[in-house]
Amino acid sequence: MNFLEERIQLEGVVKEGNVLKVDKFLNHQMDIELFKQMGAEWKKRFADTPINKILTIEASGIGIACIASEYFHAPVVFAKKSKSINIEGDMYISEVESFTHKCKNQVIVSKKFLGPGDHVLIIDDFLANGCALQGLISIVQQAGATLEGIGIAVEKGFQQGGRVIRNLGYHLESLAIVESMDAETGEIVFREQD
Amino acid sequence: MNFLEERIQLEGVVKEGNVLKVDKFLNHQMDIELFKQMGAEWKKRFADTPINKILTIEASGIGIACIASEYFHAPVVFAKKSKSINIEGDMYISEVESFTHKCKNQVIVSKKFLGPGDHVLIIDDFLANGCALQGLISIVQQAGATLEGIGIAVEKGFQQGGRVIRNLGYHLESLAIVESMDAETGEIVFREQD
Repeated sequence: MNFLEERIQLEGVVKEGNVLKVDKFLNHQMDIELFKQMGAEWKKRFADTPINKILTIEASGIGIACIASEYFHAPVVFAKKSKSINIEGDMYISEVESFTHKCKNQVIVSKKFLGPGDHVLIIDDFLANGCALQGLISIVQQAGATLEGIGIAVEKGFQQGGRVIRNLGYHLESLAIVESMDAETGEIVFREQD
Repeated sequence: MNFLEERIQLEGVVKEGNVLKVDKFLNHQMDIELFKQMGAEWKKRFADTPINKILTIEASGIGIACIASEYFHAPVVFAKKSKSINIEGDMYISEVESFTHKCKNQVIVSKKFLGPGDHVLIIDDFLANGCALQGLISIVQQAGATLEGIGIAVEKGFQQGGRVIRNLGYHLESLAIVESMDAETGEIVFREQD
């Protein structure tokens, strides 16, 4: 097991309805030392990839993306989830369904911050059915930018999101892939990775 | 002018309705090198203050708080803006009105991550009328924790938020305080700070 799998094993909690709570260190309280290890690991997995911009989505992707950016020396842009009156002018927009909140959101990025010259690394905390990620990929494509890779902290390997993205040929690096989990026993099984 | 005031002068845009857009470097695209300078400056201003937890609020406070936490070596907790089905159990809750989104939100922090033993630094990107900040302070008080200080990136000094907080005796450090701004000329005047 790698450092993130160990941490999930130690402090993650499996709940009914395929919910994996990692709020003690990842997406409510945030362990910045852990985020640094994650940033360093993505930097290793995306070595020699030209990346000049990191794209994430509010809210829980932001902290991870900011710390990761220290390893890539690239600014972070976060996609916003609903139209804010402070965002104006031309925007890239995609529709995203949220598993957690049971609703549809518009995901928005200002055209000022993403364009054809950009080489983008997408970073997010979770990948399950992949809706949020598909929205971000759509935005990269609308911008005419190059998607160099996708870094995910925790992938639910028993849902379809990761498979679809890999089938489409994208370079996806999930630091922990949960193969199965059991709310009754609390057991979490991770997919073997090289 | 300090580094943040200079950056606001250079790349901030004043819009009608008392809107200061700093989305190029602070709250949509995020300049992590700038965030490091901000973290170092807060560390200086809160030197010798015992801080073991940083509290912020989604979304645009998260990145700043995470980078700042590297200077304080404390985990970050971010308050969430509406009830998520993934948050369960006991929570601290406060009501917050949003200037930007013209709506009321519940602000929520799990009781697991804040308690009487905690010495808290609140970090956020903007302080205007102070509603979000008052909500965070309320949560620190509900937890019985000690509020050691408040670090704000940009304070709108012509709105009441900062004055109220200082009158209440809190240690508030805003890195840039906008005294006045003019949407027609684009002029921004900062309050002199020691």
